[in-house]
Amino acid sequence: MGLEGRFDEAAGVVRVGDDARQRYHDSRGYGYPLEGNEIALAPVEAAHLLFRGDLEAVVDDGGERLDFRTFVAREPGRKFGVRFLVYADLRSRGFYLSPAAEPWLADPPGGEADFAVFPRGKGPGDGEVEYALRVIGERTDIPADELADGVLAVVDEESDITYFDVSRREPSGTSEASLPDRCEADLLADRVVVWEPPLDLYESAFYGQPLEGREYERPTLQCSLLEAAYLAARGAIDLDPETVRERGRSVEGERFDRRLTVYTTLRERDVVPKTGYKFGADFRTYADVESVENLGHSELLVRVHPAGYVFEPRDLALDVRLAHGVRKTMVFALVGESGGVDWWSLERLTP
Amino acid sequence: MGLEGRFDEAAGVVRVGDDARQRYHDSRGYGYPLEGNEIALAPVEAAHLLFRGDLEAVVDDGGERLDFRTFVAREPGRKFGVRFLVYADLRSRGFYLSPAAEPWLADPPGGEADFAVFPRGKGPGDGEVEYALRVIGERTDIPADELADGVLAVVDEESDITYFDVSRREPSGTSEASLPDRCEADLLADRVVVWEPPLDLYESAFYGQPLEGREYERPTLQCSLLEAAYLAARGAIDLDPETVRERGRSVEGERFDRRLTVYTTLRERDVVPKTGYKFGADFRTYADVESVENLGHSELLVRVHPAGYVFEPRDLALDVRLAHGVRKTMVFALVGESGGVDWWSLERLTP
Repeated sequence: MGLEGRFDEAAGVVRVGDDARQRYHDSRGYGYPLEGNEIALAPVEAAHLLFRGDLEAVVDDGGERLDFRTFVAREPGRKFGVRFLVYADLRSRGFYLSPAAEPWLADPPGGEADFAVFPRGKGPGDGEVEYALRVIGERTDIPADELADGVLAVVDEESDITYFDVSRREPSGTSEASLPDRCEADLLADRVVVWEPPLDLYESAFYGQPLEGREYERPTLQCSLLEAAYLAARGAIDLDPETVRERGRSVEGERFDRRLTVYTTLRERDVVPKTGYKFGADFRTYADVESVENLGHSELLVRVHPAGYVFEPRDLALDVRLAHGVRKTMVFALVGESGGVDWWSLERLTP
Repeated sequence: MGLEGRFDEAAGVVRVGDDARQRYHDSRGYGYPLEGNEIALAPVEAAHLLFRGDLEAVVDDGGERLDFRTFVAREPGRKFGVRFLVYADLRSRGFYLSPAAEPWLADPPGGEADFAVFPRGKGPGDGEVEYALRVIGERTDIPADELADGVLAVVDEESDITYFDVSRREPSGTSEASLPDRCEADLLADRVVVWEPPLDLYESAFYGQPLEGREYERPTLQCSLLEAAYLAARGAIDLDPETVRERGRSVEGERFDRRLTVYTTLRERDVVPKTGYKFGADFRTYADVESVENLGHSELLVRVHPAGYVFEPRDLALDVRLAHGVRKTMVFALVGESGGVDWWSLERLTP
């Protein structure tokens, strides 16, 4: 026979007495203890106990007896629907989780986190948090400056849930290569042709793409404007760097400068960026290029955004799904006003 | 010993005499015949012959002798760079192709086509065209109303080429299912819960998602606002259709009506649309649902746009690549002002 709870609407919690502490809190990680054997439940916790039939009913301040349907219809609490769905999903996967707030937790995760998820087999009393979890609906935009280490759960319009592992990801590599001196080059529309540079510019440093096969000792290379701007700034080709950058801006707008910042930062970290166009990204990257002949798999797909960018969950789903499908990690490079770059990776996660 | 051409800059063609007609036109499909043995070449054709060393040089109106580099540096003709790259790529794959214009062709493809590509082994004189080919750079936007049957070649910033097969694609299916009468339902934030409807609503008609497993005879279903708006309009749930649509508009804006138009059109064609969120699309579709128990693979990913939409090639690359990776076909549903839907599929193609 289940217990009844009392809905304290002002406090936004459901209080349950009798042996609730032992039955729900101590053994199964719901709520936080009050005096005696009473506990307080967050609305999602109470809804879950109602849903499972563990709690018989919740009685509101006016004395009305609520079952699962009528309790849920009140949408008790901010983002109730999506938070409940994620709470129930993780519970059904065998995890305990608490609202990311005191007094559920002595030291709750900050930021925009909704829940603290405990390691499998652990609960709120064990002092260990596996990750902070943020829950959003697929129509909720996420400003880039709200990205935080942890897990992001996105509930789609049909109530399926996708989990993303969000973490900082600093690219670094070993693809160092020396550059030639002032090779002849022509700027043509939105690309640059470098006429018969030393083979190493392509074969070791991996700039450009040969105009025809690789059978020549000094293949003529087609370079992107980004590659050319970088090479020109280092004196490796005989074009004026500012002319190349101007052309970049004229065909791409301010996006060109952001992408050049990221391109340059990656090259300075000895990572080779090549175009990510075929994957709809800005770059794919190779950390350890020894030669193009023996090129490994590219590891990252990089998308460049300004630091103030606001993500749409659907675009995140698309990027991360595609990256996963081609065995790469999706990385977002957020470029600040002063030219600093923040790197975040998002990967699909199955809890 | 190669021939020389004369660059008729006013006409925008390169004329070659001697035995050019036999050498270049009749046997290898370059240019169009003039009087005697002379032929006229488009700049891309002349550049290709220069590149291969078949043409020694091109002499301009002022008497200057141009080699491949100096001829190309003039960027002779609109979109010269990207058109040359695609022309050379298809030639290297063994295809003949001509500018999509008279007098290269008696009956050239219209629209925005740049080239007519002939069937393998055929040339301009054989009266057969394999497909019309449009060439763009990855930074060139494409208005939806310029989509046309044929092939779209996109040259990325590093001069790699992706080919897309563009064609009309009318979805149709056999997933017909009857609907129940006025099931109880609640509108909650941006989704709808249908309380214990007949099992068939999920199991045969594939609406919603059960709140928990499938073990129940009458599982409570969570439906998207689109599903709910459709079901409400048909009297299958006890919500006011306009209330559901209003909620849709309030969380999604005018996009909701466009998506509802496409959702409704697909259902009317006996195709089941479910959310495409995990693929970053609007819908994935099932043409032949007999039961959810024996659900096949979904065939299409559908993205909804207004008829006046302008595509960015990078987004096309992302969508088509992802769809290919999950063995589905990417379809764009373009919704006109009057509610008509134009359907276009894009698929990667290796010529």
